[in-house]
Amino acid sequence: MEMLRNNLYVLCVVCLTYLSNLSAAHAADPLPSWSEGKAKTAIIEFVEKVTDDGEPEFVPASERIAVFDNDGTLWPEQPIYFQLLFAIDRVKELAPKHPEWKTKEPFASLLKGDLKKALAGGEHAILEIVMATHAGMTTEEFEDVVEKWISSAKHPVTKRLYTSMVYQPMLEVLEYLRANSFKTFIVSGGGIEFMRPWVEEVYGIPPEQVIGSSVKVAYGVRGGEPVLVRQPAINFINDKAGKPVGIHTQIGRRPIAAFGNSDGDLEMLEWTMAGKNNKGFALYVHHTDAEREWSYDRSSSVGRLDQGLLQAQAKGWTVVDMKRDWKVIYPEG
Amino acid sequence: MEMLRNNLYVLCVVCLTYLSNLSAAHAADPLPSWSEGKAKTAIIEFVEKVTDDGEPEFVPASERIAVFDNDGTLWPEQPIYFQLLFAIDRVKELAPKHPEWKTKEPFASLLKGDLKKALAGGEHAILEIVMATHAGMTTEEFEDVVEKWISSAKHPVTKRLYTSMVYQPMLEVLEYLRANSFKTFIVSGGGIEFMRPWVEEVYGIPPEQVIGSSVKVAYGVRGGEPVLVRQPAINFINDKAGKPVGIHTQIGRRPIAAFGNSDGDLEMLEWTMAGKNNKGFALYVHHTDAEREWSYDRSSSVGRLDQGLLQAQAKGWTVVDMKRDWKVIYPEG
Repeated sequence: MEMLRNNLYVLCVVCLTYLSNLSAAHAADPLPSWSEGKAKTAIIEFVEKVTDDGEPEFVPASERIAVFDNDGTLWPEQPIYFQLLFAIDRVKELAPKHPEWKTKEPFASLLKGDLKKALAGGEHAILEIVMATHAGMTTEEFEDVVEKWISSAKHPVTKRLYTSMVYQPMLEVLEYLRANSFKTFIVSGGGIEFMRPWVEEVYGIPPEQVIGSSVKVAYGVRGGEPVLVRQPAINFINDKAGKPVGIHTQIGRRPIAAFGNSDGDLEMLEWTMAGKNNKGFALYVHHTDAEREWSYDRSSSVGRLDQGLLQAQAKGWTVVDMKRDWKVIYPEG
Repeated sequence: MEMLRNNLYVLCVVCLTYLSNLSAAHAADPLPSWSEGKAKTAIIEFVEKVTDDGEPEFVPASERIAVFDNDGTLWPEQPIYFQLLFAIDRVKELAPKHPEWKTKEPFASLLKGDLKKALAGGEHAILEIVMATHAGMTTEEFEDVVEKWISSAKHPVTKRLYTSMVYQPMLEVLEYLRANSFKTFIVSGGGIEFMRPWVEEVYGIPPEQVIGSSVKVAYGVRGGEPVLVRQPAINFINDKAGKPVGIHTQIGRRPIAAFGNSDGDLEMLEWTMAGKNNKGFALYVHHTDAEREWSYDRSSSVGRLDQGLLQAQAKGWTVVDMKRDWKVIYPEG
């Protein structure tokens, strides 16, 4: 029996080795939606170095952590953050239960369709909208609300489902990294519970690998069952200097690759590239394609990329020129 | 070429299937340190049901989340929590830099070796000790301090390294669950950064799968390098009702198996066993072995198990009788 098992084992190993050589020889391009150029080459060279145990840059699989911003990096953020569009839809849906909103800003202007006036109150107005629409229910109820919206709401410009507006070239990067034993995390300024219900299906990223901003939740008992109730109070803002803090809290180890698109990601990229013997990789997506997507950077109110671009140039980080480097923007069909 | 590849593939699958059947038929006991009995049977039956896609209790691999308390569940917590022993050692080490501690409680009593008097101040005294020893340094500096202590300090009673006092039967449960595609998490009232430096090597649990209590950290720049500095302020207490909150924040999905040993784990077990169509498994380790470990429950000041034991009995959760169910306590050698 032992000999039979050993012989079978040897046969298996021979088969698998041969199959794997065949596959490698015929390996498809891991990033087919990327045009040949500096950005694509930089990604592939990085992955090949950290996964080759003969290289000084080799990193063991357990330490291959890659972090991705979401808004503007994995999907668009124009004309405004998609989560804000979700919140506005929620305000309209909840309005019949809130007659006081007819005269109370920022809700009154929102309900009249005057987004500019509604948001004139700045961060405070946004916070009011978010708290009114994102709190006061259990975590499971909120998950249902997000699932319903994400599977039906359409983007005001493209008229596509939001989940069909994720960037195809970035989906390929996620897949390529995971095929090389990376753990891929989202590290977003957006709400953690706004992303978790759908990112596993869309990006292949499970909920435990999502880091984001959050409201406080409180444990309680309803009808004999324990529940977590979302409170109208900020727990954590995962943006700018908050991103390294969020990464530290939830991952507890320095990433070796970071992907962002705005100044809000700068500290995350700096943190990824710091420390002794750093082997890290940092990439900025630069929105340069006004025809197929949007074109904006230094002077944009959403997703401003100013200091980040200067740092990237000074430090030699990879900058993706969306117009030149991406053959397609969204997945087909 | 395509036909060659297909034939090789079929041969491989046949080989692997046969090998895997051979292995299953001769599979070793996955829990060799567990005596035959209700607890061992319950663990194995649970794992077999949720991994068998012909069973109504089947759970897809991505949802197989198992959570483990640490103190008293994966390693002991007597005569006091090991992290408090670490803090006391730190007070002694730092004392020369803090002449004021000679007359300031709780430090003065600690330095005189009067632990009882030092802790007479209750939670406030403990908090003072923890803040004085766990904050005011970068996250990397703290990691170094923990690594140095855990690799050299000895337990006051057993005189063993703390990492050699982990429970062998629980190591087997962790390994058994992971072999069945579970993701294993620690969900401890202890400090998250006190565990992360060593749990991957000892329990096979990576830092991103550790949930615990934490101090606030602040992002800053020192000598041109970004750092995270530990602040003397509590960020989160991951105990009692905090455990479901910590699980929700960091994992974002309900576990299907929870292992604890005290009333501090009760809400975690209740949360794991709640919700529609629950297929969960809950287990309490009951410390009943005064000879090989410690014996305590309802009236212990450390790791009290009172309400939890009542709930376990009422709801039919698995209760491990350490004396009867565990053939060994610690790993050999």
